[in-house]
Amino acid sequence: MGEVGLVEKQVFTLERFTTLGGATLKDVRVGWESYGRLNADKSNAILVTHYFSGTSHAAGRYAASDPLPGYWDAVIGPGKAIDTDKYFVVSSDTLTNLNAYDPNVVTTGPASIDPDTGRPYGLTFPVVQIGDFVNVQKALVESLGITRLKALAGPSMGALQAYAWAATYPEMVERIIPVIGAAGGDPFLIAWLGVWAQPIRLDPKWNGGDYYGREAPLDGVRAALKVVVMQANQAGFARETWGRKAADPARPPQAALDNAFAVELGIAELAALRAAAVDANNFLYLVKANQLQGTDASRIRCPALLPYAPDDLIFPEEWVLRTARTIREAGNAVETVVLNGPYGHLNGIACIGQAGPAIARFLER
Amino acid sequence: MGEVGLVEKQVFTLERFTTLGGATLKDVRVGWESYGRLNADKSNAILVTHYFSGTSHAAGRYAASDPLPGYWDAVIGPGKAIDTDKYFVVSSDTLTNLNAYDPNVVTTGPASIDPDTGRPYGLTFPVVQIGDFVNVQKALVESLGITRLKALAGPSMGALQAYAWAATYPEMVERIIPVIGAAGGDPFLIAWLGVWAQPIRLDPKWNGGDYYGREAPLDGVRAALKVVVMQANQAGFARETWGRKAADPARPPQAALDNAFAVELGIAELAALRAAAVDANNFLYLVKANQLQGTDASRIRCPALLPYAPDDLIFPEEWVLRTARTIREAGNAVETVVLNGPYGHLNGIACIGQAGPAIARFLER
Repeated sequence: MGEVGLVEKQVFTLERFTTLGGATLKDVRVGWESYGRLNADKSNAILVTHYFSGTSHAAGRYAASDPLPGYWDAVIGPGKAIDTDKYFVVSSDTLTNLNAYDPNVVTTGPASIDPDTGRPYGLTFPVVQIGDFVNVQKALVESLGITRLKALAGPSMGALQAYAWAATYPEMVERIIPVIGAAGGDPFLIAWLGVWAQPIRLDPKWNGGDYYGREAPLDGVRAALKVVVMQANQAGFARETWGRKAADPARPPQAALDNAFAVELGIAELAALRAAAVDANNFLYLVKANQLQGTDASRIRCPALLPYAPDDLIFPEEWVLRTARTIREAGNAVETVVLNGPYGHLNGIACIGQAGPAIARFLER
Repeated sequence: MGEVGLVEKQVFTLERFTTLGGATLKDVRVGWESYGRLNADKSNAILVTHYFSGTSHAAGRYAASDPLPGYWDAVIGPGKAIDTDKYFVVSSDTLTNLNAYDPNVVTTGPASIDPDTGRPYGLTFPVVQIGDFVNVQKALVESLGITRLKALAGPSMGALQAYAWAATYPEMVERIIPVIGAAGGDPFLIAWLGVWAQPIRLDPKWNGGDYYGREAPLDGVRAALKVVVMQANQAGFARETWGRKAADPARPPQAALDNAFAVELGIAELAALRAAAVDANNFLYLVKANQLQGTDASRIRCPALLPYAPDDLIFPEEWVLRTARTIREAGNAVETVVLNGPYGHLNGIACIGQAGPAIARFLER
């Protein structure tokens, strides 16, 4: 088992794209990358869909010196669960991708230049939905001559895309692997997503979404990402990494209001690391897309493999098992796999290797 | 079973109080109320300790026209689980109580007037700990001639106070009823409490804690309370109350970024209702007091009854059961009671009646 080798970002462009809401966007561009080779009859393609704060970089490295490979490298590569000796794996950036300022991300969202004005769309960008992400992906795979996908796999928001694909284009989807995600679109998650977004609107630099060419609302973005980091993790992670230590032993937390615990500083640093690449408006639009999503799982017509984390705070076990039941009751083969680890939801990324054997078997079936 | 009748707020004053951190506060005042009568040998007193966003108003009404009685009225009253025909129940406001502008709350915290300057303390107020809340309560009950408490009972932050009391003053505590709370002081909770606080610091009106006499940082307070409301609830609550409806049917959420779901508006309204009485600095100091708390449960030397909610997002079942185990292993009788309901953590308030029979038996033992 090895890595997929050096990966090259490619760009897919749609001259015109009509959103589910009826808006027309010109020059829609999304980044994509692929691992493995498309076979002659184009029957070995697997589409990988990314999570809320993720990108199309699912496996391999852009340069040999990259410190880390793509997020699911544990299961994508030659001889791995999603075996690139057998399958052609495609992964694309979504619309309104969070990481608009990551040089390896290509996305179209409020931070993009509106061709009609030459300036960033900002809040004039239309609301987009997970179904729009799916339609862009469909155009991308069709541009490669692919009419049917061997499988769709993705964690979290990637799972939402897989459910939407399977329910909307059943004739194109042979099987799905929605990881750490439920189909339903629960009101509690809608409200939590709103809580993720609220620090951005509180930051005066956000300025009603009009901050391009000035200082970005980075305090708000950092605070928003802190909420995401917390909900995407679990207690074991905080306990093992930081415990109850002070951030600075010379400044004990009980001595002054501003003296922090190590865990507070640690979470803040994790959030700050990501914030530089994130556009605040893209964050708000991505929240909206996730809030709007709710696939009726009874419309799914293919086998499904659902790896999940039992202590997931974003998609609780109960919701995942309810989704599994609904897909099964509609007459499909459904399997669940438990991902153990200290990260809760993020076990779906950090501990995906545990599902490797189940994924390999599921793809061969 | 009836209500305790009309309740009168009383004020307890300490001319001087030294905090655990070594600071001296003059003229410390906290509000308190009582239900039932203290018996001749002063052996029938039960102290009730309130939760993070709560007050000393645990039972009864201030006026017959009050729409709702105190928060635990279901279990405090004549013939109820905490039977005021038998017990004398005392409940006091903590230091740095959140609801500094509630006319029925008396507290000492950063929003209080510093007698030395005639102006609010603001961030010159010293850090206070749950142990300081306990020491003020000890002085209060001793001022009533009480040297031993029949029981200590309280939900959430009230449970933290009960654990701290039992570990610090074992000779004064006959038994404890810590509801929806664990003793440990988990790093994950420390980090979440920091997430609760962050919107206040983001609000420019907070102004480094110096806003007295000007406009208060109410946007930040409202946003902070939204996080608290979310974590103190659970999915069933959101589903049953609002579902996936739009806040305004004429403005569907998919039509514009600012068009909200009913659940988003509902949570925001719940938070806004409370925000008017809340002082932003008191919120930050209360967060700090909770972050600092971690009672070593093996030091507890009395029986304990622990009602809890299995799907609690603030004090997860695992932590509560670990605390129960530690108290039991130290040689004490320990009982747990499951509180069912759609509210998660808040089942400890809204559904406390379910624990009524267990509480009544536990007090008689």
